[in-house]
Order: sequence, then structure tokens, then C-alpha cells
Amino acid sequence: MSHQEGLTAYLAAFVAELAHSGVKDIVISPGSRSTPIALVMAEHPDLNLHIHVDERSAAYFALGIAKASKKPVAILCTSGTAAANYYPAIIEAKISRVPLMVLTADRPHELRDVGAPQAIDQIHLYGQNVKWFVEMSPPDHREDMIRYSRMVCARAAATAIRYPAGPVHLNFPLREPLIPNLHEKLFELPERSEGYVEIHEGKLSLSEGTTRAIVNSLSAKRRGMIVCGPIEDENFAEAVIELAKRLQFPVLADPLSQLRSGKHSGELIIDAYDTFLRYEDVKKTLTPDVIIRFGAMPVSKALSIFMKENRMVRQIVVDGGSGWRDPLTSATEMIYCDESLFSKTVTQLVEPSNDSAYLDKWQTINHHTKGTLSAIRDNQELSEGKLFHMLADLLPKGSTLFVGNSMPIRDLDSFFFMNEKEIRIMGNRGANGIDGIVSTALGAATVSQPLYLVLGDLTFFHDLNGLLAAKLFKLDVTIIVINNNGGGIFSFLPQADHPKHFEKLFGTPLDLDFHHAVDMFGGSFVKVQDWDHFQEVFRQIIDQQGIKVLEISTDRDRNLREHRDLWKSVSREISQVIKSADYGE
Amino acid sequence: MSHQEGLTAYLAAFVAELAHSGVKDIVISPGSRSTPIALVMAEHPDLNLHIHVDERSAAYFALGIAKASKKPVAILCTSGTAAANYYPAIIEAKISRVPLMVLTADRPHELRDVGAPQAIDQIHLYGQNVKWFVEMSPPDHREDMIRYSRMVCARAAATAIRYPAGPVHLNFPLREPLIPNLHEKLFELPERSEGYVEIHEGKLSLSEGTTRAIVNSLSAKRRGMIVCGPIEDENFAEAVIELAKRLQFPVLADPLSQLRSGKHSGELIIDAYDTFLRYEDVKKTLTPDVIIRFGAMPVSKALSIFMKENRMVRQIVVDGGSGWRDPLTSATEMIYCDESLFSKTVTQLVEPSNDSAYLDKWQTINHHTKGTLSAIRDNQELSEGKLFHMLADLLPKGSTLFVGNSMPIRDLDSFFFMNEKEIRIMGNRGANGIDGIVSTALGAATVSQPLYLVLGDLTFFHDLNGLLAAKLFKLDVTIIVINNNGGGIFSFLPQADHPKHFEKLFGTPLDLDFHHAVDMFGGSFVKVQDWDHFQEVFRQIIDQQGIKVLEISTDRDRNLREHRDLWKSVSREISQVIKSADYGE
Repeated sequence: MSHQEGLTAYLAAFVAELAHSGVKDIVISPGSRSTPIALVMAEHPDLNLHIHVDERSAAYFALGIAKASKKPVAILCTSGTAAANYYPAIIEAKISRVPLMVLTADRPHELRDVGAPQAIDQIHLYGQNVKWFVEMSPPDHREDMIRYSRMVCARAAATAIRYPAGPVHLNFPLREPLIPNLHEKLFELPERSEGYVEIHEGKLSLSEGTTRAIVNSLSAKRRGMIVCGPIEDENFAEAVIELAKRLQFPVLADPLSQLRSGKHSGELIIDAYDTFLRYEDVKKTLTPDVIIRFGAMPVSKALSIFMKENRMVRQIVVDGGSGWRDPLTSATEMIYCDESLFSKTVTQLVEPSNDSAYLDKWQTINHHTKGTLSAIRDNQELSEGKLFHMLADLLPKGSTLFVGNSMPIRDLDSFFFMNEKEIRIMGNRGANGIDGIVSTALGAATVSQPLYLVLGDLTFFHDLNGLLAAKLFKLDVTIIVINNNGGGIFSFLPQADHPKHFEKLFGTPLDLDFHHAVDMFGGSFVKVQDWDHFQEVFRQIIDQQGIKVLEISTDRDRNLREHRDLWKSVSREISQVIKSADYGE
Repeated sequence: MSHQEGLTAYLAAFVAELAHSGVKDIVISPGSRSTPIALVMAEHPDLNLHIHVDERSAAYFALGIAKASKKPVAILCTSGTAAANYYPAIIEAKISRVPLMVLTADRPHELRDVGAPQAIDQIHLYGQNVKWFVEMSPPDHREDMIRYSRMVCARAAATAIRYPAGPVHLNFPLREPLIPNLHEKLFELPERSEGYVEIHEGKLSLSEGTTRAIVNSLSAKRRGMIVCGPIEDENFAEAVIELAKRLQFPVLADPLSQLRSGKHSGELIIDAYDTFLRYEDVKKTLTPDVIIRFGAMPVSKALSIFMKENRMVRQIVVDGGSGWRDPLTSATEMIYCDESLFSKTVTQLVEPSNDSAYLDKWQTINHHTKGTLSAIRDNQELSEGKLFHMLADLLPKGSTLFVGNSMPIRDLDSFFFMNEKEIRIMGNRGANGIDGIVSTALGAATVSQPLYLVLGDLTFFHDLNGLLAAKLFKLDVTIIVINNNGGGIFSFLPQADHPKHFEKLFGTPLDLDFHHAVDMFGGSFVKVQDWDHFQEVFRQIIDQQGIKVLEISTDRDRNLREHRDLWKSVSREISQVIKSADYGE
């Protein structure tokens, strides 16, 4: 059999299995070595191909599709530094548990490490940052090797999906000529008439004995709290709320827990803790005797410090993905069990509590904090906090809010409160980078509509190239750029007290007018004048298509002052509440 | 001693040694974890700090400075995916032998792999793609640890510089608080009053016996050729020309050999081989009996094929950096010796040849090929080949021409002929990526002026962010964008014969008007109308400052036809020459 026939049969088997494994979307960056894989993929009727020139953006775009769809997405590039550009998104996928199938074309063995063009060392290119690496065999037409090609694909997809989900990397050594023989029966696979491997994944569940022991130990607890960090399980919200009701525990809901917005009961949701857990009197009042934590670590530093300060109490970490999510070294129990399953089972077995005293305190303090913070609504000047307060009102039901790292996610945490609008909140909180946010959001926008992206100017700049996807694939997205001309978060960090090198090293004003870039990518751009103008434009563009960018200019120093003033007001208000309620027992 | 004092002393010792090691330039991307290193660097009087938000561009920018200055350059970023963005430039540095010191801040041990924010696995983050990796100890004030900090820095710089030069990676675990104590005596180092380690690097040189054996074996050769690929040794041009004269061997000079332009004798330089080595009759006429090759593999595929077809003859590869640069598996001798030293020593010892018959053939065919190719000068339409032909005339003496990968480097190879203008030609030919070209060129522009960058539209797009450096650092650069609206090289590859998926997967037209982006970065943009306009604008802007972009729109299909027509003309012309000269012996 010829080289071409072997190449074709081997890759067609792989691609057929890929489609069968649940992969619908493939993001391809053009290149020469990857030609045969790309051509075979283009022939498959069930695959959506997205062509994205910049591999860094391409990988983040795929990450966004995978996050939003909860399905594995494949990325394909040629040999060389192209593949290295995937690295940031791969690391983000690994830590935030998103299934990606990374397919890289490579030079064959005889062209490696011998000075051949565009040849780098792609073996274990991503080190520990993928769940599985396979150096594929060179394409081969023999039946065993066709079966091998299919097996690796099925197994790779299963590995990527298996919780904790993550990226896998398959490296394909390909020899010239790189042209497959595209014929009508490409995906008919006589070598395996019995069909595909079907994969069924189990979930981690505890034995009844272990569950009963945990349940018994929880029954005695009167001051328990539940902390929900970023988690992406759609059954989780209902399950954890039921558990909390049963135990009468407050639920501290991180913005990415998907508990801040939805049809589930909001009564037990605590959403202003990032503000009120800054105060000593509050923290003393709310000292818990047990903490049950689900999901990744929450964004809030105040909450982290609170949990750290309570390291003498029982802290239970539940993780269906067998990680070790305990940066505070505060865990007393590490429970490896599916989070929804755990919540449901414990709810069924535990005696309902009728002591709501501790919960009441959380609810009261939370309520007053939100009341005071809502004063931000009266601020006339454009500000970062008020934006998120308004978005809870303005966003349409069922929309997706993608939020950038650094300050936006923190301001969201502080000012975006519980509502029933089923707004899905997304972010890249695996490694918390400012890179790739535009592309990840645009990937998500292919799945979830309408999608709103809020991010800072440095983050927007970092992935401007990502906008190309919106132009080429005609995506609809509303982007709100908070432009404080530099790195706003540094004003909140200790270096702000050292003015000598501050602006140069940390403030880093770029002085860019993004209007130009948005024009280049065929979007519309509006520089927001004031809040009335913002609301007016926001409502106008809801039905418009394409890229819509609203820029809100803010001032880093003023923003810092606004935050500090609000924190002071809350502190005064809450101290009063605690005193008058005689909480200071 | 306090945490702060230990942090300060340890990092100040490191930074003092860094400056002493010959590092002048540091490219810093802003971040929180790297704060103490950045602040200490900012205090050092001998270091130039360049602040660059996008780490991918930042690393390539540093690569450009290091390439142009031949000095090690340091890059510094915070923890997380920031560091992963460095990967493409690090790989390019490794393969193209450029000294980079990669400094990454990291979370301390207790915050690793426990779900802490912005914490990824940075141990051996770049795998085999750095020459040396060191996980630094946590900062420590003890004398032994101060000495350790200095030793690692000195050794890292020496390792980066040592031929083959390349990147080294030092990872710094840093604990909060991250603020050093910046005092006046920061760089006074009482712990090591004896001063710095001085490092003296030797070069590889052969024993006299080995050299004599090689010399003796060369004396008998009458049909020898010298191939010079990319090489960055300023003593090499003179040395190899002397060797070639002595042996009467033609010198096939890759554009990046630095032999195509300079004050050295051009008589023996063969610069049109990429065209004429496509023809069977020429190849038969020019069959060699020995090939001596220096530097990385040349760009020309025609030359590679020619060398591969002559694998039965002696092929000597000389490499001062102990690589294995032999993708054709054609080497008969691998000589590990400094290239200039080898050339000088052999020149001294070898008997001068008086048989120039073989050299004459190369010179004659080269001369006629250039004559025919120069017909491109009469083409009225904007074309990619003619551009490089004109640039040899238009570029000022002593300027630097940075050229993008894919088609530009190939067209340069075909159409940019030997001249005496001492034009330095640069490119990223380690991994031949289309990524990071703008930034690498801008880094080089901080060292070499005036600098001209020629690249395609996809390459320009890939690193548009890189232009920020030109804006913020007020760099002068002329950028010529060959805009054929997509991937021009694919029209020359076999997939061009498969129109079904061609435009989608390979042509990839982006339809971008770069005018907007150039405006955003404060540059001037001219869309070239015709060749008269081009020459006029080119001369006008020579003395202008800032970013100047000239866009030349070309057509991919027409470009392919133009190349093919020229190759046909050359083929006819040269066949005639060979026949009439009775070369076909």
C-alpha cells in the first residue's frame, strides 16, 4: 500500500473516532506539516472547523468552547513554535479542569534534533501540564495500526473528559508528501466493523459507612458554613442549597460557583462576604465550628484570610476530581466524592437542624452590607464597582457574563449580588492570567448567547488578536472595557506605597485608543460618557450583531478611594448592627 | 534578620551579579509576585529596563536585543501563565543559539499544587528547551546563601553565553510581603569583598594532527564547494573567504550567513543557487567531490536537495557549538571546532589550488542566473520578488534588514544579491515560526539602526501587539508588509492542487486593514500604489522617526505565476549557457 493510502487510512480512522468521541469543534491554525490532518477533518460531516491564525488565541478560543459546552474540543497546529503558543491555554485548561485535545503535527523521527527547519522537541512539550501525552506512531495502513489510531483517539478523549477534566496532547510525526487521498468512503472503516469503543465514566462516591460517620459528626454542629468556589456542575446548585437548608448553614457563593444567579432559592446565599469579612468584629461574631468547602478556591482574599484564621475548626474539602485544593493548609478532611452526590446523600441522611441563630447573623450582616454597598448606585462618576452593580440589573435573563482577571473579577465579587436571572458567570480562574481572555470569551460566545465580556485595558490589549475570531466567524459579543490606562490592581497592593518606580513598573499606562483596533476587526466602539449614556447605549446594542465595544474610562486613584470609602461605611454600619443585636457574645 | 532584609540582600546580590555578568537589558512584564526583583532591578544604575505587558512579545523583544547585541538579555515575569507565554521565544532562542536569562517569580513551596491563585507548576516549565534550569532557594540573608545567589547568577549568564548560546531559566519562589527595602547601599556587598567571579570561555579547536589530516585530504579535491548557512560570528566572513580563495571553492552564501553583504570580496560568493539548483542539467554539471558546510541549515530547499542528491561525496559539517546539524544524514565528517578558527587554520596549512575550472562554472551559471532574474526589475506590477531586488539598491549602507519567515526569507534568498553595503540580515531561523517577528525586529532595532523589517500579512498580524514596544520606547523602524491577504507559501505547496478546502484551511484571507492598528500604535501607514510610489515614499521616510509601515498588496496567484515564469526563463538561459560552454562533460 502506498504512503498516501496509509496516511489517509490512519488519519481517517483517527478523525472518525474523534467525531464519535463527542468532539464537535476543532480549532485549526494553518500550517504545512498538519496539512493531512486538517484536510481529513475538513471532509468529516460532523466537525465544525474554526480557522484561527494566532495559535495562542486559537487555544484559548477552544478553551472557551469547551468550558461553555462542557465538551472536549480539539486544537490542531503545525510543528515548531506554533505548538508552544498553545502553552498558556493548556495550563489554564489543566488547572481549571477543561477538556482539550491538543493535536500537534511534528517532523518525523529522522528530521528531529538535526537542524531541520521548523523542528523543535515536541515530546512532552507541555511537561506536567497535560493529563496524557502520546507520541503517535507514524501513519501506517496495517489493521493493528488503524485500530491503534482509533484506540488512542478514544482513550485521549475519555482522558480529557474524565474528572478532573483537562488537556491531553497527541503528537503526530508526519512524512512528506503530506497530501491524503480524499475519497468518498474516507470514514468507512472496514477494519473495525464492530463499531466504536463506548466509554462510560463513573463518579466518585463514598461508602455508606463513611457517609454516615460524616453525617453523624455534622449533626452536632450549630455554627457551620458552606463555601462554594468555582464549580461547573449544573446539578450542584440545587443539591448544595438543599444541604444548606437541612443544616441551616449559610452558603458563601463565589461568583463562579454559579450560585449567585439562578432559579434556586437565594435565601441562604451570602454574597457580600468579600466586604464584611474584612472587619475584626464581624469575624469574631461569625466564628464557625465547621466549614464545608466545594469547588476551587474562591476569589475573595478576605474569605481566605477568614478561613485561615479559623484553622482550628473542622474544615472539610469535597473534591470530585481528586485534587488537593487547600492552599491554606486548613483542611481537616479531604473528601474525594462527586460534589452533587455528596450533597444529596448527606441531605438525605442528616437530621434537619432547627437552630438558625448562626445563619441569621450571616444573613443580617450580609443584608446590611449589601444595603450600604448599594450606595455606589448614587455615584455619578464612572467607576468600576458601580458597573457590576448595574450589570445585575441590565443583563438580559439567561445571558453569560465573562469576566476578566485582576480587578474585574474582584469587583464582580464585591458588587454583583444574588439574582434569579440565571446569568452564567465565567472566567479563567485556573491560573488567573490576564492572557487569552478575549479569545476564551469568544469561544464561549459560540455556545452561550448573548455573551457579555467585562475586562480591563491591559487584559483587552493582551489578547487583541483574539478579536479576529469574532470578525471571521461573525460572532456576536458585547465587550465592556474598563480602561484605567494601566494595571489597576497594583494600586491595591503594597507597592502603591513606593511611588519611586510605581508608574513605570506597575502602573504601566499604555495610552492606547482601542477605537482603532475595534475598527480593524469590524466592530463598533462607543466611549461611554456617563452612566445615562452607558444605559442608553447598552440597551441600544442588545439586538445589534457583531463586536460591540463599550469603553468606560476610570481613574486608578479615584477607584482606590471609592473602594476604601465604601469599606469604611460598611465597617461603621455593620459595627452598629452587631452592637445593637448584641451579637458580640 | 527580618524577612524583608533577607529578601533584599539576596535579590540585590543577584541583580548586582547580573549587571556584572554583561546583562544590560532587562525586559519586564508587570506582575505582583515579581515585584521585589523588579524593584531591585529598577534601582541598579547599569540596567536598562523595558516594560512590556504581553509576555510573548516581551520575550521575543529580548531575543531581538540579544541577537543584535550578542549579549545576554534577561526577561522577568510573574507566576502563572505569564511564564508560559515566554515559551515560543525560548524555543527560538534555544535553536538559534541566542543567550537569554529567563527569570520567573513563583509562589513559594507551600502554595504549590494546592489550588492557590496564579500558581502553576513552574519547575522545568520549559522542559528540554533551556540549557539550564534552577529552582532558586527561597531568599535568605545568610552569607552562604548570598554567595549562592551570586554564584547561580554568574553561572547562569555564563551558561547562556557559552557556545552554543541559549536560554537558561531561574525560578524564584517568593513569599509575601513582596516589598524589598530599597536603600542607598543596596549593591554594596560586604559578604564578598573579593569581588565577582570572572568567567573566561574557551573555543573549540582541533589538534594539529587532526587539522593536518583534514588539510591533506582536502588538497586533492578539485570540485569542492563551501556552504554557509545562518551564522553570527563577525570574524567568520573574512576567514571563510580566505579559505575559499585558497581552495578555489565557491561559497554558497545563505542570506543569514552575513556573507551576502559586506566589504569582504564578493567574487567567490554564489547567491543565486536557490534558483539554478532546481535544474537537472545544472546539478549534473556542478556535481561536487567535497562539501564543507558551516552554520545552520540554509533556507534554500533546492540547495538541500542538491546536497542530499550528492550524499555519496564527502560532506564536512563544521560546528563550534557541538550540535548535530545534519537533517540530510549526509555528513561524512562532523567537526566540532570554532568555525572561524577552523577556516583560518586550514587556510594557513593548505596548499593553494590553481585549478579554478569548477569554481568558474559556478560563477558563470550564477552570473547568468542573476542576469535573467534581474528581469524582474522591469515588472510593473507590485510583486514580492521585485521588492527584495529593489531593497538591495534602496537600503542605506550599514542598515539592518530583518526578514519574516515563510515567503519573505525565501524571496530574499532568491532576489537579494551580493553587495558591499554591509547590510546586516536578520531573521528567526531557529524554529522558523511566523510568531514574534515584529517584537524580535523591534528588539534588534534598539541596537541596530536603521532597521527595516519585511514580513507577510499573517506574520504581521500574529505579533501586532509587538508594536506597543515601538510606541512606548519611541523606537524607529520601517516595516514593509507584503499583504497578499493570507498564507502565500501554501500556493507553492502540493495542497494548492486541491482547491476544495484550500482557501479555508490554507489561504486564510484575514481581510484586515492594518492602517487602523498602525494608527493605534502611533505610527504612519502608507499603502503603496506602484513601484514609483514605493521608491518615493521609501526615500521620504528614511529620516522620519517612529513606526513607518509601507504596505505592498500582492496577489498570491500572480506571485506564483511570476516565480514560475522566472524559473522557466532561467532554465532556458542556463541550459543554453551549459550547452555552449560544453559544460556537460
